[in-house]
Amino acid sequence: MSFGGRVAVVGATGAVGQVLLGCLESREFPVTELIPIASPRSEGKRVGFKGQELRCQILKPGIFKGVDIAFFDASDAISKEWVPRAVDEGAWVVDNSASFRLDPDVPLIVPEVNGMKLGSPRSRVLTGPNCSTVELVVALQPIAEGWGLRRVVVSSYQSVSGAGSAAIEELKAQTKDALSGERITPKIFSHAIAFNCIPQIGRFEDSGNTSEEAKIIAETKKILGLPELKISATAVRVPTISCHGESVNVECVFMFEMEEIRKAFGSSPGVVLIDDPGNGKYPMGIDCAGKDPVFVGRLRRDPSLENALNFWVVSDNVRKGAALNAIQIAELLLENVR
Amino acid sequence: MSFGGRVAVVGATGAVGQVLLGCLESREFPVTELIPIASPRSEGKRVGFKGQELRCQILKPGIFKGVDIAFFDASDAISKEWVPRAVDEGAWVVDNSASFRLDPDVPLIVPEVNGMKLGSPRSRVLTGPNCSTVELVVALQPIAEGWGLRRVVVSSYQSVSGAGSAAIEELKAQTKDALSGERITPKIFSHAIAFNCIPQIGRFEDSGNTSEEAKIIAETKKILGLPELKISATAVRVPTISCHGESVNVECVFMFEMEEIRKAFGSSPGVVLIDDPGNGKYPMGIDCAGKDPVFVGRLRRDPSLENALNFWVVSDNVRKGAALNAIQIAELLLENVR
Repeated sequence: MSFGGRVAVVGATGAVGQVLLGCLESREFPVTELIPIASPRSEGKRVGFKGQELRCQILKPGIFKGVDIAFFDASDAISKEWVPRAVDEGAWVVDNSASFRLDPDVPLIVPEVNGMKLGSPRSRVLTGPNCSTVELVVALQPIAEGWGLRRVVVSSYQSVSGAGSAAIEELKAQTKDALSGERITPKIFSHAIAFNCIPQIGRFEDSGNTSEEAKIIAETKKILGLPELKISATAVRVPTISCHGESVNVECVFMFEMEEIRKAFGSSPGVVLIDDPGNGKYPMGIDCAGKDPVFVGRLRRDPSLENALNFWVVSDNVRKGAALNAIQIAELLLENVR
Repeated sequence: MSFGGRVAVVGATGAVGQVLLGCLESREFPVTELIPIASPRSEGKRVGFKGQELRCQILKPGIFKGVDIAFFDASDAISKEWVPRAVDEGAWVVDNSASFRLDPDVPLIVPEVNGMKLGSPRSRVLTGPNCSTVELVVALQPIAEGWGLRRVVVSSYQSVSGAGSAAIEELKAQTKDALSGERITPKIFSHAIAFNCIPQIGRFEDSGNTSEEAKIIAETKKILGLPELKISATAVRVPTISCHGESVNVECVFMFEMEEIRKAFGSSPGVVLIDDPGNGKYPMGIDCAGKDPVFVGRLRRDPSLENALNFWVVSDNVRKGAALNAIQIAELLLENVR
């Protein structure tokens, strides 16, 4: 790969796009030219990058000519149409949509977990998983490696930022209205989200799972390389602004001592253990927002089953759950392919 | 039991006490005289009951003389000290605290689940479980009866009302402050609850579980009469005002068809099935607040294990979770003992 430093960001004005631009800067990703791309309603809007104000362009044939890497942080539909075009025009793509993740020819990467398996990919499309999958697999990886996974049961507590900037505004506006007794009219979410939990993220599938739950299940299997993994997921939207929480119950194949598990988390890449419950220390969204790692706490044996344990995971769903993970994939690409 | 209709309510000005007074009225519980009892700081405060304004009294020796039934909805410490005195002074007690629930001589009752086992109790103290236990056992009962329970994994989404009226005010005030960028200083909760999930309810035990999680586990076993039940719980406080949600994964002993499970929920006392996900219908706190039943939805097979299923439960934690359940226990007492 000859990397000339020309980087396009599709969805540059969105919640993930904005964090992605910040991370490209703070991680000193070798960008020589940045091409911000947004939807027609944001055409001409300016985004800041390395002290400059850059005008957003819109998607059009030829826009990826000469681009080395294009990050896609827009809708599934946009990726489905434009990712193949970007590749045709010569770019490598890191796609955060769900459109290509489960394609057997397309790598689905969380660098700390399966980055070492990337090698020199034949596919010029690399994908990052769903935000709720990222933190789960980063937390499961040391357990899988050390003791094997027999079964995983996860329930999520997902913030509204997973649904984009407009969803954050909706939560704030609805909450104000609720506090002053005003009537609430949901727009982004199908029901009121202010002071409410909605047990639906995505659309329902025939299995009774939502698309979000189906993503957690399928993507976790693919990333961990465990196609037969037994895993059950329930995804719930909660009225928080950033970070997703996950309550995880794991049955391991082999016996463990809790102290060994604790050590494994402590030395696992991308994981930070915050687990001092006696002093009120465990991961929470208000502390983890804007940070890179996946935070694990509330670690304890589950005596209801042999070789089972419970823990609680929190991570910034926009950052490690999407933007940062995409950049880490691109960094891996530069290392492996250059 | 000769029931003369004299009813005392300890904690009459609290979140549960207030709903209890309303339910006594709406269910036409045969009260001839109501004695509201509150803490010294609420002495003389008036509470409404059947169109009258009654002055709150404080706990003092002799106050339960002539009282037929005393409802306790105050702290564990108040119950520990005053429940035995109330019994000594001749009252029957329905206690919602945790102080006597696990005493093998004291019945722990959710009428729809184990009310039929009450008989003529020797104990004059009857107890209702923790709010998060109530909805869980009501939902588990038809499954336990029909197919046997092998293992239960539950993660809760608990509203602040479980921590009392002051906690509701704290969530509202903190949320206002958060929206206007003010600094937040937690009082009731150990951390900010506005737009945040706190994975701690109660204090931590040596097992690593919180007292709330330990209650869910121990009380569920006692109420279902399954001391060997395998059950794991994670309790999380979420920024909602009323109702607790629970994500429940159940492994049954026997094979089932989903249609049979659906029927069992549909005909189980105290349960209302709201399960039409294609039309966006499932239980949510904003719809279930102020209502009596335990609402079940998101019912689906869990293919990660034989004979396993997932569902989502919501109930008003102050109402069925505490106040209403206590009155139902008292109603049972009148039927059985009169």
